[in-house]
Amino acid sequence: MTNEKKIIFNDVTLRDGMHAISHQYTVEQIAELTRLIDESGADIIEATHGDGLGGSSIQYGFSKETEKDIITTAVENATNAKVGVLLIPGIGTIHHLNNAAEWGAQVVRVATHCTEADVSEQHIKAALGLGLDTVGFLMMSHRAEPEILLEEAKKMESYGASTIYVVDSAGALTMDDTRRRVALFKENLSADIGFHGHNNLSLAVANSLVALEEGASRIDTSLAGMGAGAGNTATEQLVAVMNKLGLPHSVDLYQAMDIAENVVKPLMKRPVQIDNLSLTLGYTGVYSSFLLFAERAGKEFGVDPRDILIKLSEMGAVGGQEDWITGVAQELAKAQA
Amino acid sequence: MTNEKKIIFNDVTLRDGMHAISHQYTVEQIAELTRLIDESGADIIEATHGDGLGGSSIQYGFSKETEKDIITTAVENATNAKVGVLLIPGIGTIHHLNNAAEWGAQVVRVATHCTEADVSEQHIKAALGLGLDTVGFLMMSHRAEPEILLEEAKKMESYGASTIYVVDSAGALTMDDTRRRVALFKENLSADIGFHGHNNLSLAVANSLVALEEGASRIDTSLAGMGAGAGNTATEQLVAVMNKLGLPHSVDLYQAMDIAENVVKPLMKRPVQIDNLSLTLGYTGVYSSFLLFAERAGKEFGVDPRDILIKLSEMGAVGGQEDWITGVAQELAKAQA
Repeated sequence: MTNEKKIIFNDVTLRDGMHAISHQYTVEQIAELTRLIDESGADIIEATHGDGLGGSSIQYGFSKETEKDIITTAVENATNAKVGVLLIPGIGTIHHLNNAAEWGAQVVRVATHCTEADVSEQHIKAALGLGLDTVGFLMMSHRAEPEILLEEAKKMESYGASTIYVVDSAGALTMDDTRRRVALFKENLSADIGFHGHNNLSLAVANSLVALEEGASRIDTSLAGMGAGAGNTATEQLVAVMNKLGLPHSVDLYQAMDIAENVVKPLMKRPVQIDNLSLTLGYTGVYSSFLLFAERAGKEFGVDPRDILIKLSEMGAVGGQEDWITGVAQELAKAQA
Repeated sequence: MTNEKKIIFNDVTLRDGMHAISHQYTVEQIAELTRLIDESGADIIEATHGDGLGGSSIQYGFSKETEKDIITTAVENATNAKVGVLLIPGIGTIHHLNNAAEWGAQVVRVATHCTEADVSEQHIKAALGLGLDTVGFLMMSHRAEPEILLEEAKKMESYGASTIYVVDSAGALTMDDTRRRVALFKENLSADIGFHGHNNLSLAVANSLVALEEGASRIDTSLAGMGAGAGNTATEQLVAVMNKLGLPHSVDLYQAMDIAENVVKPLMKRPVQIDNLSLTLGYTGVYSSFLLFAERAGKEFGVDPRDILIKLSEMGAVGGQEDWITGVAQELAKAQA
């Protein structure tokens, strides 16, 4: 292990975890979870709608509480941890960011698709102007070869981001995929490196460890993996292994275990687990928005929807190409016959 | 990846999975699962009481069906796969093994604690005399340093075992722990190498991949991870990643996914998952038999039972030292005060 500096834990139970509860955390739950996560030693507590600032909408689902209440509640209840927010340009705006900073957020992660870093320039610069800890967040990082991803990371660095994340949104990275991306960042960036994992291929903890081994210094986790589908890297699981390896961090294992089991798991509508759906997403690496369409087309043309998704993935679909699906299904049916 | 030969899948849904169903599979379920697992392309189907031949007892729990019915049902329903059995000397005997061979079992795994390979000599030799594919199975492999484990493996090899397993019974190995053990085996044994993982630290798939990378050629999996506690390496998850990596094997991913989801998961009394209990076992690496005693002593002396288990682990407890627990708890309480 190359790390000797303390690893920063960025807790996303109150942000990615929002998806798992359809954004319905109450201010009481946000207050309690913030206090507990803060006490357990996490460094940053991200609290925002699952799709970031401005996400509460018909399109992405309404939060139970206002953005202001979510952020101020977290800020009021965090003693040591900084409160962070997620900003996806296009969903959230600089106006939202100004508000978040005013309400006490100290960290912002400006998130773009892995090949669209250039849309983050304004937002990263605005965040720096507000004095925030400013992070670039390259979503769906498996969809860009390491060298391409590095170019995008360099853009974010040039705008001023002080940490850049490899974000495995679909849980589709293998350990070697993770290693190559983080190692290339480490070699070529002066920014700190972060890793955000999902467990679709059952590799969230392993990929996080590989990222740390290659020099990442920030890691995203949520208690009990609280997040959509197969969930995020589970704090208590990663901490257990990091303790065994002697990696420095400030999260208390027993506290994390107990909050995960006694507070977070009871909030879940369904257990965070790897099922056919989430495994298919990790395997094919496409957006979940394709699933329903692929299933319908699969039935209509008598082909396995998973084959449709794999083909879409090979064609480079990243979201929004639902109109390709019928053609792909027809083609596969023809090939079968 | 160093493997170019096809990786052998040893399915343990009908053996380790027995634990998850308190050994209550019916012959109908055994027949159906054997047919499905066989069709999906697994190479070996292990079907025995969870604790191996002779395990059905007051001590280990009675199977629903007789040993003969379990094995003959699997044999009758497997077309391509060989049927295997587990034999833990002390629980099972050569008499049981003779019967199993007569009923059509073609593979036997002779299992001992990782530092007690010498008790396997007679059984391995008897298995060879019966013409069985004979495997040495070193349980709780995390409790022996790699060099010690290698010495034990060499004993099994000298008795005639043609494959030797690193068995992570408690799911306590880190990826580096796995790598060092398998690499040392590869360098020093002519026997084939197998790996058996559990998911207590969320590393079952990752450790299996590391083992393959280091030259293991047999892997134990169960559908949906069907097994006690955090479960085994889940077939469908490992296969998904192996397909992404292009590793050669003969298991059909979609079939494995569908059997896991539609047939195996509905059999589970509780979902296979990482909870406080299973994570504690992986973290401390002790036998589950200590848990209840540690909890009682923890309450009595006001110390965290997890600290008791860690101390027991450091003291080298492997099972049967329940009488140490009160002393450890007292000592920890004194240190706290």
